[in-house]
Amino acid sequence: MRSVMMYGPGDVRTEEREPPGIIEPTDAIIRLSATCICGSDLWPYRGEEPLFRTPQAMGHEYVGVVEQIGSDVKNVTVGDFVVGSFVASDNTCDICLAGYQSRCRHNVMMGSIGTQAELARIPLADGTLVATPGQPDRDLIPSLLAASDVLGTGWYAATAAGAGPGRSIAVVGDGAVGLSAILAAKLLGTERIIAFSRHPDRQTLASAFGATDIVEERGDAGAARVKELTEGYGAHGTAEAVGTQESMWQAIHSTRPGGYVGYVGVSHGVELDGLQLFFSSVHLHGGPAPVRHYLPELIQLIWDGSIDPGRVFDLTLPIEDASEGYRAMDERRATKVLLTF
Amino acid sequence: MRSVMMYGPGDVRTEEREPPGIIEPTDAIIRLSATCICGSDLWPYRGEEPLFRTPQAMGHEYVGVVEQIGSDVKNVTVGDFVVGSFVASDNTCDICLAGYQSRCRHNVMMGSIGTQAELARIPLADGTLVATPGQPDRDLIPSLLAASDVLGTGWYAATAAGAGPGRSIAVVGDGAVGLSAILAAKLLGTERIIAFSRHPDRQTLASAFGATDIVEERGDAGAARVKELTEGYGAHGTAEAVGTQESMWQAIHSTRPGGYVGYVGVSHGVELDGLQLFFSSVHLHGGPAPVRHYLPELIQLIWDGSIDPGRVFDLTLPIEDASEGYRAMDERRATKVLLTF
Repeated sequence: MRSVMMYGPGDVRTEEREPPGIIEPTDAIIRLSATCICGSDLWPYRGEEPLFRTPQAMGHEYVGVVEQIGSDVKNVTVGDFVVGSFVASDNTCDICLAGYQSRCRHNVMMGSIGTQAELARIPLADGTLVATPGQPDRDLIPSLLAASDVLGTGWYAATAAGAGPGRSIAVVGDGAVGLSAILAAKLLGTERIIAFSRHPDRQTLASAFGATDIVEERGDAGAARVKELTEGYGAHGTAEAVGTQESMWQAIHSTRPGGYVGYVGVSHGVELDGLQLFFSSVHLHGGPAPVRHYLPELIQLIWDGSIDPGRVFDLTLPIEDASEGYRAMDERRATKVLLTF
Repeated sequence: MRSVMMYGPGDVRTEEREPPGIIEPTDAIIRLSATCICGSDLWPYRGEEPLFRTPQAMGHEYVGVVEQIGSDVKNVTVGDFVVGSFVASDNTCDICLAGYQSRCRHNVMMGSIGTQAELARIPLADGTLVATPGQPDRDLIPSLLAASDVLGTGWYAATAAGAGPGRSIAVVGDGAVGLSAILAAKLLGTERIIAFSRHPDRQTLASAFGATDIVEERGDAGAARVKELTEGYGAHGTAEAVGTQESMWQAIHSTRPGGYVGYVGVSHGVELDGLQLFFSSVHLHGGPAPVRHYLPELIQLIWDGSIDPGRVFDLTLPIEDASEGYRAMDERRATKVLLTF
């Protein structure tokens, strides 16, 4: 089968590799309908994060049709169209039951398996996979694929930021996750949504997804602008979707005391000064998003046409051209790249 | 009037100084019935935090009788017995209304005024002071004084840690605030309360206040012990009442993913690694406690005899002997020192 492999920074190749088989009786094998490149895939691509192994099978987002199931799998069956999260989870341990499936006691990071491929093994299939109400129309595929990570991650960030009626929510990061957080905040009834963005195309999509204000300043200047827009208090909450030192403090300083910061950008080089954090008095919550928790609701919203998160994909390429997809995202020529077979 | 002044590390003196007068029409002057030394007063005493000025009038906890009010003060009157928080607040701004009076838009830190004295000026008296239902019996004074800071701070930590029925709550720190957090967790109905403590006297009080388990290990060994006690998951929440690098990670690592860390120890030298925090998946919330928010409820609980937080005072000295009080707390011969006039 065709699979995207990374050999080192900047070196991505589409190659033939052995198709996966069932290993555990709780596994399923799915045939992907489409896959995609994540902003977090750019960290190793830029040499800012080591590869687990060389070469590494890339990808952790997936939608597709169940092709084979292990003997213990009961919740999905061959032929089902399914969506899963970037973390496989049993959905039965106390952590899962509390809504934190991404930190399941038996969690498996799908990035360690690689889903930028025609087929993928999904561990803990009963807990991980959610079947759609039927076979989706082709034009729903991008939105369902977005639900696998960026939509669910943005949703979590917006929720952790306290999005809802009467609230002002700032969003740091105008990539696919930040844009999805805007969409989520809007759907959750947020009164005012302040998007940080300097990129005209992304500003347009931010507004289409529900942003009421666009702030081009960054860092403390950006936070000061949010305070101006909120009677001097700061936003009720801020969704952070970048993961750098600057973006974390931009989020914290944009938020009023007692407010909420939902951070989902994977931290790179972040060190938070305890005393500054102490006197910020914010609620700080985030980490790998428990996408599985939100999947049933998100799939239904997509199925009903209530949301169209697939709009974050602004470049579609055949999997053979994955390396061009990585380049386009690295150079910010594309927000998010869909790969087809 | 007699007042406790700090001239530098280890140098505390009780001296005569000019009594305060009304400055703003929103001020009140109170005659203190008792005052006390806070664990946070030990930071400058140990030279680990600079003084604002030299000498510095010490203290930020207070109860007493209103002696004079400014022309705009309406909610308290001369003769009222009052309790206030260590942060003066207007109790009308959006931050106060959201329950974060310690970060009031117009907040005044009482430590900048000094309440280890016979009289004290209380800014924003209408927002800051809460009158008791009547003149208290002498034996209620220690508990009402505890409400001014340590009880309210412990309460906030326990609340931020998610204390309540069905929950397991760990408490890092066996000083007056940590002990108060145990008392709060108990009153909030917490099923299991795990106290970190190595000090026999404090272990006894921790158990009296409601601790169900005592853990003597610290750091990662302490966190591992909490995991053992909670089916491998970690506590549902942890109250942190120390403020060091070790205590913060001990709290975070004692808490399960998706759990809650309520931290109220003023941070000293804390730097939180972003990636570790990210993958902890905890809710992190704390800062200077909005004691004013809890005061009406706490005063009533004390008035009714439902709680006896004054037990954290294990040494009472006349204000002339304040320097001995500081020494006793510094050397951990006393948990918390009450000063009388």
